[in-house]
This record gives sequence, C-alpha cells and structure tokens, in this order.
Amino acid sequence: MDFREFEDFAHRLADAAAAVTLRLFRGSLAVDDKGATGFDPVTEADRGAEAAMRDLIAAEYPDHGVLGEEFEETRSGSGWRWVLDPLDGTRSFISGIPLWTTIIGLEKDGEPVFGLVDQPYVGDRFWGDGSVAYRRDRFGGGGALKTRPCAALAEATLMTTTPEMMPDAASLARYESVEAEARLVRYSADAYAYMMVAAGRVDLVVEAGLKPYDIVGIIPILRGAGGFVTAWDGGPASAGGHVVAAGDRALHGEAMRRLSA
Amino acid sequence: MDFREFEDFAHRLADAAAAVTLRLFRGSLAVDDKGATGFDPVTEADRGAEAAMRDLIAAEYPDHGVLGEEFEETRSGSGWRWVLDPLDGTRSFISGIPLWTTIIGLEKDGEPVFGLVDQPYVGDRFWGDGSVAYRRDRFGGGGALKTRPCAALAEATLMTTTPEMMPDAASLARYESVEAEARLVRYSADAYAYMMVAAGRVDLVVEAGLKPYDIVGIIPILRGAGGFVTAWDGGPASAGGHVVAAGDRALHGEAMRRLSA
Repeated sequence: MDFREFEDFAHRLADAAAAVTLRLFRGSLAVDDKGATGFDPVTEADRGAEAAMRDLIAAEYPDHGVLGEEFEETRSGSGWRWVLDPLDGTRSFISGIPLWTTIIGLEKDGEPVFGLVDQPYVGDRFWGDGSVAYRRDRFGGGGALKTRPCAALAEATLMTTTPEMMPDAASLARYESVEAEARLVRYSADAYAYMMVAAGRVDLVVEAGLKPYDIVGIIPILRGAGGFVTAWDGGPASAGGHVVAAGDRALHGEAMRRLSA
Repeated sequence: MDFREFEDFAHRLADAAAAVTLRLFRGSLAVDDKGATGFDPVTEADRGAEAAMRDLIAAEYPDHGVLGEEFEETRSGSGWRWVLDPLDGTRSFISGIPLWTTIIGLEKDGEPVFGLVDQPYVGDRFWGDGSVAYRRDRFGGGGALKTRPCAALAEATLMTTTPEMMPDAASLARYESVEAEARLVRYSADAYAYMMVAAGRVDLVVEAGLKPYDIVGIIPILRGAGGFVTAWDGGPASAGGHVVAAGDRALHGEAMRRLSA
C-alpha cells in the first residue's frame, strides 16, 4: 500500500485545521460547557477546524468515512475512515498554553495505517505510517523519529494528561503504582506526550478514558518511531479507553504488568 | 527612570540565552542530578545560557550585580542587580516540551523594575516594567498585555507547576483549599503560567518553594499587565517562597485569605 498520497493529503488537512485554530488561539473564544459536571470546553476552533477538514475529505475522498470529535460520524462501506481530533487539549488552548494539537488518523478496515499530529503555533508536526515516522519544526529541522531505550520504570520519564482522567478507583490505583516507580512524572501534555515518546524524549504515557480520535492518529506515528502502544491489557489501543505507550518494549511490558495486575 | 535602555539590553540577553538553549533543546543533553533526593536536572543549556548572559552584563554594566541559578552571586554596591533564571522549567526542557523559559529580572535597590520572559522555540516573548507590559510572537503579533477580570475563585482558571512543590502539609492543605474551588486547574507550566495571567488567559497562579530568580523577572510583567503578585501573606514576592499571582484584585484577595488562613 502506498501511503504517500495520504501523507500529502493529511498535511493539507493539518494546514486547513491550522488556519482555523491559529486565528482563534489566545483570541476571543466562545467557550461552552459540554457536560453538566466538570468543565469540558468546546471552542469555535474545535468545530471550525473539524468542519474544514471534513470539507476537504468530502471533496477528495467522498467514499471515505469520517469519525470526528465534534460532528456525527459519516459512515462508509469503503473500509477507509478518517479519525479526527481537531483540537486535542482544549484546556491548554483556552489557557493560552501552546500544547494543544490537531490529530489526524486514517484507518483501513479498522486498522490505523497513517497518523499526523500538528502543533501549528509552535510549528511542530509529526507523522508516520506504522513503519516510519517523521517530524519537522519551524527552524527547518526534522527527520526520522526514533524512540529511546529505557528498560526499567525506575529510569523512566512518565507523562499523563492528569490522573483525574482515571475512570475508577481501581484504574487510579494501578496508574499510581506505575507513577510511584517512575523517575520523573509530568502532566498536562495530551497528544504532545506521545510525540515526545516517539521523539525519544519521554519513555512512557499512561492514560484512560480516551476516545478513538484521541489515539488513532497517534498509533502509526509511535509505531513508526519504534514504540509500543496498546490497551492496558495488551489489546488494541485504537478503540481508546485505557492506553499505555512506551518507547521501549521491556518498559511497555513492565508497565502493562502493573496496569493489568 | 528610563527603562528603554534596559529593555533593549534585556532583549539582547534573551537572544544570547536563546542561542544556547535552542541548540540543545531536544538534542543530546548531559543531565545531572543536583540533589541526592528527587530529580533536579541541570543541563548544559542552563549553565551555557547563564554564562552567555553574564558575559554581556559584565561587558556592558560591570558595576551591576548578578544573581543567577547556576553560578555564585556577583555582588555590587551600585544598587542594580540582574536576577537570571537561564532555564526555568528544566523538566519540560529535558522532556522535549516547549514550555521552558528564560527569565530575566532587573532590581534597583531590591525592587524589581524590569522583567523579560522568553520561550524561543515557540517564539513567545513577554516583557514589562511594572507600568506597562508587552508580548510578541513569531507571527508578527503582539502588543500590550492586559489581565482579564475574574472576581471569584469559582470562575477562575488556576495554574501551578505541581502541588508537590508545597514544602509542608500546612501549605499543601491551604493550596488544596484554593484548588478545590477553582473552575479549571492546570499543572506543569512554570513561568508560562504567569505569562498567561498577564495575557488574560489564566486567572490565578499559586506556588511555593520559589527562588528569587523564579519570580523577580515575572513581577514587573505581571504588574505592568494590571495583575497582582505577592507572597501568600501579602508581603513582597521578590524573595520567592510562597507566591500568589492573579489578574484580578478581588480574586487575589480571595486567594490570599485562603492561603494565609
């Protein structure tokens, strides 16, 4: 299968999303509460960026399905499905912190085959197809992404968006059994955390409560960089839920043993 | 007093620091443990950026003192002192997360009179003199910084680097009494959090265990944007320690009442 066509197209999707998000970042935003409890901001940027990407997909690949965060799923019998998170990290976005991203995934028959993660304010873009992965930055730097070795949790840098995303006490206890052993722990980076595993700067990400659009676009990048990403029990990560990602196979195994104990 | 001379010079200091930090960010770093307990990375970037700024100060203002994170204080009888954190957020730096900053402060007779905060990978720069404050970004955007109104903690976005920086159980309990009431809480942004208060994107920052170089350069920016920054008990923030910063006077008062209860 030749992914170059989809690679070029995914970059166009990211550019279209960035045109919307950059116009609104740190500007005046209409922030809605999605839920009755908690604080789940939905911004104009979220909706506008997803709409811009959907328009391009409908024009270029009318037989492809689309699953996005903000609008109803567009189903298709073609086996191809784009999985879009127009604005991952909306809490960063509304706080002015440039760690939000646009996540673009492509599935074929339910398998993630291509992914792209973009942070246009910083100028960081990451993409991959499960075999190889690349990054570029605004300084003209870039190249192949490669995870780093880290054979033991005691040596690992761990990231997670927040332990508060753990959906129940058992999940929190398992997460905490990993956090307690890690060398360094950082919160609040959303998809950026996985990209830093792909880039060999972070060793481990443990999260729960993910939706498919939070993770599908990340999987081919992380695997293309040599990393490992599964559900906590070792099953596929592409449905979301409980996810563990590591740059090193041994570390991934050690974390899984604690998370599925 | 005319700060334009120091403003120009502070931009030169930030440029010199950025030349060092950008070369090393996401590159190969020698990471040292500073302490026997915990993980306090000191990088080549930290030392190199401070040395570059000290060289410029010694050449331009040989009668000015310098207090920096990495080297011995250079004392002076002139009343002028530069207070430098070459790399605030070293944990972000080593994790590849572009939220670290260089903080440059200038004191006259112990009072912070000018500050500059720079994030060169993102291209965000913030500066102020207690009366006015400005920002610029890599897109040619910028202008005067202005905090936003937020009269009640229940409506506030709160940021802190991590509750783990609280030095004792009483401080943690007071911090938590604020966190429990806030509308939205975000961790891990270091000096960026204060800049987002100045920019009107975040309402409140509560921290403890700060050193002077963590906060001196921030104070004139935050005040210049219309914000309020003190110790938890209302005393001066410039010595570090327990610090509370808010964009709105009423919110600052409400937080102080809880933090000094």
